[in-house]
Amino acid sequence: MARVSQEHLDARRRQILDGAARCFARNGFHATSMQDVLAEVGLSAGAVYRYFAGKEELIAAIADEAFAGIHGAFEEASRQSPPPTPEVLLGAVLRLFLEERIPGADRRAFARLILQVWSETARDERLAASLQDGFDGMRVLWTKIVDGYRESGLLAADVPAEHLARTLIAVAQGYIAQQALFGDIDVTMLEDGLRGLMSMSVYGSVTMDPQSAS
Amino acid sequence: MARVSQEHLDARRRQILDGAARCFARNGFHATSMQDVLAEVGLSAGAVYRYFAGKEELIAAIADEAFAGIHGAFEEASRQSPPPTPEVLLGAVLRLFLEERIPGADRRAFARLILQVWSETARDERLAASLQDGFDGMRVLWTKIVDGYRESGLLAADVPAEHLARTLIAVAQGYIAQQALFGDIDVTMLEDGLRGLMSMSVYGSVTMDPQSAS
Repeated sequence: MARVSQEHLDARRRQILDGAARCFARNGFHATSMQDVLAEVGLSAGAVYRYFAGKEELIAAIADEAFAGIHGAFEEASRQSPPPTPEVLLGAVLRLFLEERIPGADRRAFARLILQVWSETARDERLAASLQDGFDGMRVLWTKIVDGYRESGLLAADVPAEHLARTLIAVAQGYIAQQALFGDIDVTMLEDGLRGLMSMSVYGSVTMDPQSAS
Repeated sequence: MARVSQEHLDARRRQILDGAARCFARNGFHATSMQDVLAEVGLSAGAVYRYFAGKEELIAAIADEAFAGIHGAFEEASRQSPPPTPEVLLGAVLRLFLEERIPGADRRAFARLILQVWSETARDERLAASLQDGFDGMRVLWTKIVDGYRESGLLAADVPAEHLARTLIAVAQGYIAQQALFGDIDVTMLEDGLRGLMSMSVYGSVTMDPQSAS
């Protein structure tokens, strides 16, 4: 009986979060009201407010859940030896969380929502803390994976693992920016790009030529 | 006489744009009013509105100017054969436009302003068009540079040049996102990260192991 009740609570929470995510992605965070969310999920204010005190709690819960899913994928990858190479792992995670679940037309709206959430952290400390936690977790897991590349001889350059981790996270953030701004990027492009970088030699940097303008 | 007058007009325009950029970076785009800009530059409304009809025109002019500077740096690099390698070129451009000119404390505020501008494109078509132009120009120039890598034998993988160009732009956008969100990134980290990627072999991708979770 208690178990059924918990299942019911979880399902209700799920229903609210999914509806809120649809509203936010469609109209943006600022233009969405709690009334819009209630209408979308077809529940009373009393039923919804029992779970979430407001929009800020909803968006923070959606962000926490997305990070949890992404962390799970990275944890799985970090147990593999050698770990999946960057273009494979980044491609799989981006595809799973930003492409496959979301139809094409909504993909750009969803990316715009993420940009809004990023902007919102300047004003909302709770959300800023959520994103900091999510990012820290991602950085730790990617760093562990980069250590795995080095241990299995896949990474030759003597660079701090965290710096490669940050660069790969930057690529994912750039995907979100380009999807939000122009709506014309897909994951294959970044997989190609990473393969391109991996095919360049690290021995023999070409520096800027101060004469090149003349 | 006409020449002095044009110089005067240019200097006045410069003074307004610099003051507006300081206001926007300090308080964000939405929280800044034209009154704040007038107070910052110490000019009358009449003097400022002769140049810019409002905040939207100011921010679009600031963005256009930033893109013009970045394009200049890429054009110079694309004339070099072989072109500077990605970690060198991306590092130099990011340092010039996002680090050296802007003191540490303001760097995060400036990155937050760029995020706001990105978000704003969803509502402001003129700004969206400015950013689309700037991005298209950057993509074309990076693509030309990647062609240069291939011609000089620096790039081995048979991937579309534009996809590598987009990936490198994504890294720069990720720098902006991490600076805005956490304020704890510097360009050296991305240079290391790119070097790390370039030191990995493109022959021998390691795929995801479906058994790794067990």
